Amino acid sequence: MIVEFISVGTEILLGNIVNTNTQYLAEKCAGLGLSNYFQVSVGDNEERLAAAITQALSRADIVMLTGGLGPTEDDLTKEVTAKVLSLELKEDAHTKERIMDYFSRRGINRPPTMNNWKQAMIPEGAKVIDNHNGTAPGIIIWTRDNKHIILMPGPPNELEPMFENDIAPYLNNLEPEVIYSETIKITGLGESFVENEIKDLIEAQSNPTIAPYAKTGEVHLRITAKTDSKEKAEKLILPIKKELIKRFGLNVYTTDESVTLEACVTDLLMKNQLTLATAESCTGGLFAARIVNVAGASNIFSEGVITYSNKVKQELLGVSPETLQKYGAVSEQTAIEMAEGARRLSGADVAVSITGIAGPGGGSDKKPVGLVYVGCSLEDKTKVCEYRLRGNRQKIREYSVVYALDFLRNCILKNLM
Amino acid sequence: MIVEFISVGTEILLGNIVNTNTQYLAEKCAGLGLSNYFQVSVGDNEERLAAAITQALSRADIVMLTGGLGPTEDDLTKEVTAKVLSLELKEDAHTKERIMDYFSRRGINRPPTMNNWKQAMIPEGAKVIDNHNGTAPGIIIWTRDNKHIILMPGPPNELEPMFENDIAPYLNNLEPEVIYSETIKITGLGESFVENEIKDLIEAQSNPTIAPYAKTGEVHLRITAKTDSKEKAEKLILPIKKELIKRFGLNVYTTDESVTLEACVTDLLMKNQLTLATAESCTGGLFAARIVNVAGASNIFSEGVITYSNKVKQELLGVSPETLQKYGAVSEQTAIEMAEGARRLSGADVAVSITGIAGPGGGSDKKPVGLVYVGCSLEDKTKVCEYRLRGNRQKIREYSVVYALDFLRNCILKNLM
Repeated sequence: MIVEFISVGTEILLGNIVNTNTQYLAEKCAGLGLSNYFQVSVGDNEERLAAAITQALSRADIVMLTGGLGPTEDDLTKEVTAKVLSLELKEDAHTKERIMDYFSRRGINRPPTMNNWKQAMIPEGAKVIDNHNGTAPGIIIWTRDNKHIILMPGPPNELEPMFENDIAPYLNNLEPEVIYSETIKITGLGESFVENEIKDLIEAQSNPTIAPYAKTGEVHLRITAKTDSKEKAEKLILPIKKELIKRFGLNVYTTDESVTLEACVTDLLMKNQLTLATAESCTGGLFAARIVNVAGASNIFSEGVITYSNKVKQELLGVSPETLQKYGAVSEQTAIEMAEGARRLSGADVAVSITGIAGPGGGSDKKPVGLVYVGCSLEDKTKVCEYRLRGNRQKIREYSVVYALDFLRNCILKNLM
Repeated sequence: MIVEFISVGTEILLGNIVNTNTQYLAEKCAGLGLSNYFQVSVGDNEERLAAAITQALSRADIVMLTGGLGPTEDDLTKEVTAKVLSLELKEDAHTKERIMDYFSRRGINRPPTMNNWKQAMIPEGAKVIDNHNGTAPGIIIWTRDNKHIILMPGPPNELEPMFENDIAPYLNNLEPEVIYSETIKITGLGESFVENEIKDLIEAQSNPTIAPYAKTGEVHLRITAKTDSKEKAEKLILPIKKELIKRFGLNVYTTDESVTLEACVTDLLMKNQLTLATAESCTGGLFAARIVNVAGASNIFSEGVITYSNKVKQELLGVSPETLQKYGAVSEQTAIEMAEGARRLSGADVAVSITGIAGPGGGSDKKPVGLVYVGCSLEDKTKVCEYRLRGNRQKIREYSVVYALDFLRNCILKNLM
């Protein structure tokens, strides 16, 4: 079955808010096995909203509308939907009572205004879905030609519980087929390289399918199977998953959709009972901040330093003045001494250092903007890796952090072998 | 003129990513005086993408497409656009050279794959917009019936600089009427408070108009005038700008659209010849990373520490064990000692400390998740501010950083008075 999403609201067209509702619904509906081909945003305008609904009904089985169910005059979603479907709006006694109840429970002293009663008007024959977090009820209309139109409130804290508790079960009953996906996450390889390596698999695919997604410094491969149960889907996916892991080896850092690169690295440190320290220059704390993204990072991370000047590199990390003079702050040698210094200072088992030229200034022919060194000190070894990155200051710093996470991961894994 | 946005990518239809590009473009285009009535997302599918482009061309003057310009086979945006417009794709020597250059500068040892050359194919007669942060160029096609189709890469760090530097000026030239905006950026006040304070101005407005935009911990007020020259627009805007500055006083940190809060703070430090040090706990380096966002930050910032454990707070910053035991790591007293310790350690003129509970665990009735203390040590004073923030771990950390930047700014300004 095909679903189409329409988000209603002039604030979306003006770019005042990010449309997170459609992303939420799209992800949930994909998990329920529904196909989605179009997502549309439209303003609080009768003619254009009617056009969007009519078009969606012509190309989808289920049309989900969010927003425009509020009490004010420019909230038109229900009225326009009823008009498109030639349905009358009738006052719903149950909803009216719930609105009254909502007001009294929240201790709102004023009585509901006439505007609020607008929210109790329901298209004839529609199913009312109670809103436990606001006054606008959800509405499901099942048309004679077997289409389903679902109206939901715009505020995420009203929409999400309503979807979870009432809409998802309704949809589940409509669709016997299951769509199930697994994701393989890869670092250290570019998107076109990865795609080239699996060209044969992609060309031969039918069910399951493989789709690559590029993230900053990562490539995610999503394997999706369509069948009649989750178990069968997992069985279809397994051989592809194994093949991909075989092809990309250590570059695969997880096969769990919910695991981020920093969570993978933190987990690896935890499992091996290793503590981490950081010494950052051009990334200015971004690497440590990624580690601290992970709840529970305090188990392995207790100390990081940002040594932006040469003086502090010497004083805090003991980088030798000779090294700085002879090789410069952005050099293999300095990265090594920074990592070793951070380990000494903190007593941690592993230390990562990052030093580079993020630009826009500070580059030269020999050391251009984008030159970054990452050091990793572990047991009796300190390894260093050189990167030549491109892009603006922000991008160079973000990529430096991802590559440093990957380098740390590789150093630990190779040390264990 | 009417603009329509089409975002291309199966990952949007599957809900894998939030469509922030459309929000970004919608906001920017609204600022340029363009009207937007529809926003569409569609997958990497030839037939449906062609339908979306054809429909957009029928109801808008400008069609902006984002995504689907990558090197892989399912990137179809350019190919489908050319087909809809009956244009041939031809290899562009300039773009080919740029791609080659991109590879060699990044020190990528392997030659570009055949896939990469796909990105050098350009519809005949189109204008190529160089991508300074990736390999996919932007493309502008001006059709015989006076429509403008603009193709931009999907990654925000490629799209945004391209829009800012090349697309916005192009759009500006299309409109004979000048739409000119200035922005007043406010911190330390909530959106509804700000809106309430300017209710009279908003109700009385016609030209110029005032529109508030909420950002993380900030409110931006955009004043927009429509007239026939930039000079006239500036004259129309000036009295409103003065009135807003009068109403919000010190909470206005800049009236320059391009100045971020961290740039404002860095500039303030530089002008007053003050150096900064940082000591972070729950934000794990994010505050320092924001400072280092600013090119030239090395003039005022040379050292920061991330003291995630109590032990490191004692050892590195000299926070007393008694303070930690009596008041806890998340307390006014610890924030003060952290800031003073960071100043002692670094010899900097000012130090900022942040300690708090970002969650999801670690909260209690007395000290709930979201409790954050920011300390600021300057001359003979150390001030501290308590915040009670709401939201998830990520949100609490981001807000902490913004509030700490604002607190630092206020401490410096008040110290100068």
